[in-house]
Amino acid sequence: MTDDADQIAAAPETGEEDAYTLDRRRVAAVLGALDAQDRAQLLDTLEPLHPADVADLIEQINPADRRRFVELAGDWIGGEVLSELEEGLRAEVIGLLHPEVLTEAVRALESDDVVDLLEDLETEQRHAVLGALSAPDRLAVQSSLTYPEYSAGRLMQRELVMAPEHWSVGQAIDHMRAREDLPSQFYHVVLVDPAMRPVGNVTLGRIMSSARGTALSDLVEEAFRIFPATESETDVAYAFNQYHLISAPVVDEGGRLVGVITIDDAMGVLDEEHEEDILRLGGVTEESRLTDTVLQAARGRATWLFVNLLTAIFASVVIDAFADTIDQMVALAVLMPIVASMGGNAGTQTMTVAVRAIATRDLTAQNALRVTAREVAVGGLNGALFGLVMAGVAAVWFGVPLLAAVIAAAMLLTQVAAALGGIAIPILLDRLRIDPALASGPFVTTVTDVVGFFTFLGLASMVIL
Amino acid sequence: MTDDADQIAAAPETGEEDAYTLDRRRVAAVLGALDAQDRAQLLDTLEPLHPADVADLIEQINPADRRRFVELAGDWIGGEVLSELEEGLRAEVIGLLHPEVLTEAVRALESDDVVDLLEDLETEQRHAVLGALSAPDRLAVQSSLTYPEYSAGRLMQRELVMAPEHWSVGQAIDHMRAREDLPSQFYHVVLVDPAMRPVGNVTLGRIMSSARGTALSDLVEEAFRIFPATESETDVAYAFNQYHLISAPVVDEGGRLVGVITIDDAMGVLDEEHEEDILRLGGVTEESRLTDTVLQAARGRATWLFVNLLTAIFASVVIDAFADTIDQMVALAVLMPIVASMGGNAGTQTMTVAVRAIATRDLTAQNALRVTAREVAVGGLNGALFGLVMAGVAAVWFGVPLLAAVIAAAMLLTQVAAALGGIAIPILLDRLRIDPALASGPFVTTVTDVVGFFTFLGLASMVIL
Repeated sequence: MTDDADQIAAAPETGEEDAYTLDRRRVAAVLGALDAQDRAQLLDTLEPLHPADVADLIEQINPADRRRFVELAGDWIGGEVLSELEEGLRAEVIGLLHPEVLTEAVRALESDDVVDLLEDLETEQRHAVLGALSAPDRLAVQSSLTYPEYSAGRLMQRELVMAPEHWSVGQAIDHMRAREDLPSQFYHVVLVDPAMRPVGNVTLGRIMSSARGTALSDLVEEAFRIFPATESETDVAYAFNQYHLISAPVVDEGGRLVGVITIDDAMGVLDEEHEEDILRLGGVTEESRLTDTVLQAARGRATWLFVNLLTAIFASVVIDAFADTIDQMVALAVLMPIVASMGGNAGTQTMTVAVRAIATRDLTAQNALRVTAREVAVGGLNGALFGLVMAGVAAVWFGVPLLAAVIAAAMLLTQVAAALGGIAIPILLDRLRIDPALASGPFVTTVTDVVGFFTFLGLASMVIL
Repeated sequence: MTDDADQIAAAPETGEEDAYTLDRRRVAAVLGALDAQDRAQLLDTLEPLHPADVADLIEQINPADRRRFVELAGDWIGGEVLSELEEGLRAEVIGLLHPEVLTEAVRALESDDVVDLLEDLETEQRHAVLGALSAPDRLAVQSSLTYPEYSAGRLMQRELVMAPEHWSVGQAIDHMRAREDLPSQFYHVVLVDPAMRPVGNVTLGRIMSSARGTALSDLVEEAFRIFPATESETDVAYAFNQYHLISAPVVDEGGRLVGVITIDDAMGVLDEEHEEDILRLGGVTEESRLTDTVLQAARGRATWLFVNLLTAIFASVVIDAFADTIDQMVALAVLMPIVASMGGNAGTQTMTVAVRAIATRDLTAQNALRVTAREVAVGGLNGALFGLVMAGVAAVWFGVPLLAAVIAAAMLLTQVAAALGGIAIPILLDRLRIDPALASGPFVTTVTDVVGFFTFLGLASMVIL
């Protein structure tokens, strides 16, 4: 109880300055304690921190400090800190922990957190963690691991509260009062039929506010979704967000209740997918962490750079085909990057809107044609606008009216092509079941570069020279 | 109860095919009912849908169908559908509704949903909605509206359950049983001191599983955060995600409890901010919706395209400075876009990692220098690698060994500059309190274009000619 009291006393303070309690001073204090090898001071500094903040701290300090931290803090590092650590570091920290410390840490976790922790460990570490569990817990975790990665079965927790559908409020309350092992967090009592199939959720609030004799089946919530254990966690997270679910039952192939997924798990999945989308759109194709080494990070970026090199060389081949034209008028070389760059940006804009709309399921077969038509019109409008602006700039700069006309036409054509490519490529990739966030970029850039250089230099060679 | 029973019967089916129930056939059925002007058939088709799916449907059909939909469905469109609609369309649909229908719809909503709905309405519509509320509800909503936009005060709901800190489990249960107006969703009883300051949260599960005589203060949860009503919703959402909060009390300047924020609200904020980040990184600076008209969308994209035009012209001025050099060796014009493009991509990669890490608060003053050093090393490594590859390509293509050496050196320098710019610019913008997702792109591209063209053409003019 001292812990709780501390939290309460500390909270209004932290709430008033920033929601984020891991400030620079505290990190400095931790590093000071490490330098002094003062365990008491270290633990004092860590005490008020949430496990998630301790994990952030471990991530932010450098590898040498990290080792000293794990050695000095030792058995203070609990399972909660381990499950908050990012995957790459988790294996590293677990490798540094004493086996008994690891055992203690894992025992305190709920089954979904243990599964999450095990997923990224080597076989040897995995065995050590599994060995630390009690037999029933081990069986539960192992059975979760039989479900595919990124499935509802991996995401769910086994700990839940259920009741036969014919029970009354009083029976449910008595049952919960009698149970020793209620989950630490639960929001619903899941009603099941005699075959153990979930038939409805009753919120604790409804139970609380109803007379003891009320039938639970009269209190079921309207928002109710059941997920098969094999459902992808992406679809689960989408449904939680779309339907404002708080918790939902998970069933096996026979439709029998095997676990529940809660909103905080879904929020975590949503957050991970956001991260993946943003990184992939930015051309960072592999998982990327701030704690990656130089080599890991360089390798993770090289794939996309290599693809980009190929498309850039392809664009250069197009330019090379007009080498004679450029030789006769060097102004073309000066202006051509503008055409390609504006096309590339317009294409990226459309592509970003399309990729996001596909992810949120707002862009569907229903409205794809209408949205494509709109994008092409937008490309035409902005292409005409910026083509005219650039024609003016070119006319003043180089004093060749025909050059002005050529760059205006080329920009218009390129931006229309950019819009078309920017929307059609993500839709096509999605139909082919390739992640549009991952693969659209290179294709769109190739289209805009090639069309940009080809129309500008091609028109110039026909019209001006 | 018929509704609930339907939901339950339908759920396992929908769960088994897809978490997303709005399929093409249903949209077609809705359009068919609109064509036939058959209200009964329309409502039949809509009946099994969640309000969020109905809102998606209204968003996906074209403007003319949308008008027919609102006219035919009329008073069937409830407050829940309205609050699920995206902001741009909401005002449009509300404008089409009969005043009495709107009144009915709004009365059924919780205070936070009414506030959310009001935020985007014109003064006249706003008055109509406020007028529809009962006096106490109207006061509550108006007082929420006095808090700044995007603050905890706007996000919170007023409906909550609190208890004096000295109460026992039995007293809390009796209180809840006696109350007529329990919130539809609540997860905690908030303990308050005599000055109405929140001192702890007790989950309903703990209350349920404890003896009647237990003091509530013995059951408070460890994870407890209090948010001032003026706190930004960004910080609130971050804290919910970081600390796995389910609900948290909101206080006024005096520290008195005025509302609670629940995890589904926080999840919504996180989702919106993610959308904003992705769009801004993709150069879509204004709010963008698939239902925007061509003109709205074109205007929303033009700002960024204009900024890009300026930086592209700036880069062309650099090229123009070397016009004589290009005139002497047209291969330079062919190859220079490769140097700039590879630099631009490397810069975007680093920038994306940096922007995301700043948003998740993983990139801090603590590790900024170390991460910058790593990025520069990554840039150097990949710059050297792709510089060598490109040197080979150039040597074979143009047969000029010095040209190969120049492009290798230029690519190395450009990618190091890209890495430096890609990390330093977002960090700097963040310090200046400018959203790095919004403004980093143009700066980074300018750096990579200018450095790319300048080093390549400059080295060539010095070394080759």
